[in-house]
Amino acid sequence: MNAVEESLSAQERRADAAQPTPHEAAGVAAPESLSATGKLAAKLLQMFGNPPVALVLWNGERVAPGRIEPVATLRLADRGVLLSLLRDPQVRFGDLYSEGRIEIEGDLVKLVGATYEASRSERRRPMLKALARLSHRPRINSLDGSRDNIHHHYDIGNEFYQLWLGRTMAYTCAYYPTEATTLDEAQIAKMDHVCRKLRLRRGETVVEAGFGWGGLALHMARHYGVKVRAFNISREQVKFARERAKAEGLDSQIEFVEDDYRNISGRYDAFVSVGMLEHVGVENYRALGGVAKRALGTNGRGLIHSIGRNYPAPVHPWIERRIFPGGYPPSLGQMMQLFEPWDFSVLDVENLRLHYARTLRHWWDLFEASAERVRTMFDEKFVRMWRLYLTGSIAAFETGTLQLFQVVFAPRENCDIPWTRAYLYGS
Amino acid sequence: MNAVEESLSAQERRADAAQPTPHEAAGVAAPESLSATGKLAAKLLQMFGNPPVALVLWNGERVAPGRIEPVATLRLADRGVLLSLLRDPQVRFGDLYSEGRIEIEGDLVKLVGATYEASRSERRRPMLKALARLSHRPRINSLDGSRDNIHHHYDIGNEFYQLWLGRTMAYTCAYYPTEATTLDEAQIAKMDHVCRKLRLRRGETVVEAGFGWGGLALHMARHYGVKVRAFNISREQVKFARERAKAEGLDSQIEFVEDDYRNISGRYDAFVSVGMLEHVGVENYRALGGVAKRALGTNGRGLIHSIGRNYPAPVHPWIERRIFPGGYPPSLGQMMQLFEPWDFSVLDVENLRLHYARTLRHWWDLFEASAERVRTMFDEKFVRMWRLYLTGSIAAFETGTLQLFQVVFAPRENCDIPWTRAYLYGS
Repeated sequence: MNAVEESLSAQERRADAAQPTPHEAAGVAAPESLSATGKLAAKLLQMFGNPPVALVLWNGERVAPGRIEPVATLRLADRGVLLSLLRDPQVRFGDLYSEGRIEIEGDLVKLVGATYEASRSERRRPMLKALARLSHRPRINSLDGSRDNIHHHYDIGNEFYQLWLGRTMAYTCAYYPTEATTLDEAQIAKMDHVCRKLRLRRGETVVEAGFGWGGLALHMARHYGVKVRAFNISREQVKFARERAKAEGLDSQIEFVEDDYRNISGRYDAFVSVGMLEHVGVENYRALGGVAKRALGTNGRGLIHSIGRNYPAPVHPWIERRIFPGGYPPSLGQMMQLFEPWDFSVLDVENLRLHYARTLRHWWDLFEASAERVRTMFDEKFVRMWRLYLTGSIAAFETGTLQLFQVVFAPRENCDIPWTRAYLYGS
Repeated sequence: MNAVEESLSAQERRADAAQPTPHEAAGVAAPESLSATGKLAAKLLQMFGNPPVALVLWNGERVAPGRIEPVATLRLADRGVLLSLLRDPQVRFGDLYSEGRIEIEGDLVKLVGATYEASRSERRRPMLKALARLSHRPRINSLDGSRDNIHHHYDIGNEFYQLWLGRTMAYTCAYYPTEATTLDEAQIAKMDHVCRKLRLRRGETVVEAGFGWGGLALHMARHYGVKVRAFNISREQVKFARERAKAEGLDSQIEFVEDDYRNISGRYDAFVSVGMLEHVGVENYRALGGVAKRALGTNGRGLIHSIGRNYPAPVHPWIERRIFPGGYPPSLGQMMQLFEPWDFSVLDVENLRLHYARTLRHWWDLFEASAERVRTMFDEKFVRMWRLYLTGSIAAFETGTLQLFQVVFAPRENCDIPWTRAYLYGS
């Protein structure tokens, strides 16, 4: 069973228990009074499961849900927009919004969230969905493929990311101990949470698979006194991290290697990977687990932090095509392919999805505050594309469409594991 | 791929990374000086992967490992014992020990642990293992099958279990916040840990699938002010739990139902199942998840506590045949079949395997202190059978052959989930 079939079969099975949602019986208001074009627009809404969204066409005709207050209004610039959406709604919506041919009035997060919810209750054309997914085959994460895929997203300029990631330059879910925690504090708290889960001790060695701009490696070296060997295939990130380590006087403790995780060698006390698994692809999980196994032997601890899902499902095709080629957030069941073949014991799983929603809201705030700057660095289309990606991600984590799993594991033989988790919480 | 094939393939894959163990190169001492029978005994040790165990035959001949100090010595009563072991080592070892035809000198836990370790490195005859497993097909957990299987283990007399389970009569892994925690305290701490993970609030409703002798239901009703509806198919346990509830004046808050979990109906704030999943069988996980989904709808929280494994593998055939017919501890990946088809979000997984080893050591101490009493209630064979089961279980949890997973989950839609886990640890 491939991922598409699995997902569809999971959706069908969920249907056994799910309650009907308000959208299900809903259609557009007064469908009989619509023009032929208006009826096509109504069909478009139906393809998305009739979300609480109004459409206003280029000629001023309005197509709105019948029984629900719309959370947002979409203005379509011309007939081409409508026809394009009808052909390939998932990819074209993002593109047309980026191009400014769809304008949105209302809350972008609520719009995407409502569309996610409505699509769930839309069980009428699984074949169409399957076809749409098959026509958007994800890119393969071979050694060369991974390099191209990573280059696409991470090598567009460190200066751009510096505008909205905060001081830590951590591009992964933060950890907010309290409501008042700021983004920068929460990123540091996440690094500490990871280090404490790994129980790092002074003098130990750590291997990191995928290090972003090096924030976690620097934190581990500075605050936990460990030696870090860290791997990443994004040239821009490697350069940035090396400069940071030198500037902070930590370059003797950290080796930033520009290479693929598959080439990790040597034996270490801890294996850590934060936010790389999304780029690995399920077909490579066994190999990645094997890398961790060789790195740890029969001792040590590991932690993998990744976006995930409640069940296997294809990536949103617009995200896969425009934002994260080769990206795939796995279900927890799929993640077990990392651990089960190598007799790793999973010790602790924590789901931090609401923390990722908050992290993204902080990033989005900073992004909008720098929108003018981004526009001059790139163009308006780029600003709109990233706005949709950030708000869509917020909606995905807030609605539970995406999850965030932190998994701690150890070789079966290791009995030097925490007795309880109380030490993580200072008690 | 069935469980057997999966397991074998997992073992082969693990072999890629595993280090050779001391047992692997080991054989018996001076094999050339052994009699023909002694050579057969050496073959038996080889079938177990040459564990550090010595055999003394009925004629006094000693077959001992060559390069390792034995952790225990087995005395075989007659030639029939050796031939029987060679035919079906896994089932016959337990039976012959129970019958007193094998006597053991040394630490029983170390003996079983060493045998587990040696068997792992024994990769020479996967076919033989597969055949042995196929010839011991587990019993099926249909509605009638489950009733028979549960009757076999749990209806042998409440008085027997009262001798060694402690005051709580909880027959599941306890939770020891500190080294000094006693068995009874740790069982209460486990119940509190479960209730706090579920964030039970006064006035809420809870459905419990499989309630043992009712300890958790009573604890939830008394200390968390919830209404409990609890299901169990062990007649003896239901009778016992009902009497307890009446005696403690909690019978208006708890309904103990003598019925199968598949017949659970109604809507509840929380779903809990502690130590039942081991008896459910993977083929029924989807159905059990569906029961939880119907019970919770789009709100509420759930917790499943179960013995598990690092990868799918058949139950030890002696345990399946003599102790837990129909029993099966799943891998965490297999457990996901409970959650993924129903769009549940897994929020928290905690592995408490070392706590189960300690719990079992406490039970074993109490069991041995009552061995005379058990002998008069049953017979010597029964005492020896249970001694082997308890010590074998200690070894399984201490060596990581078995795990103990507590999984907290919630419907995807539920955003009223704990922000962090700090509240579990009083901070």
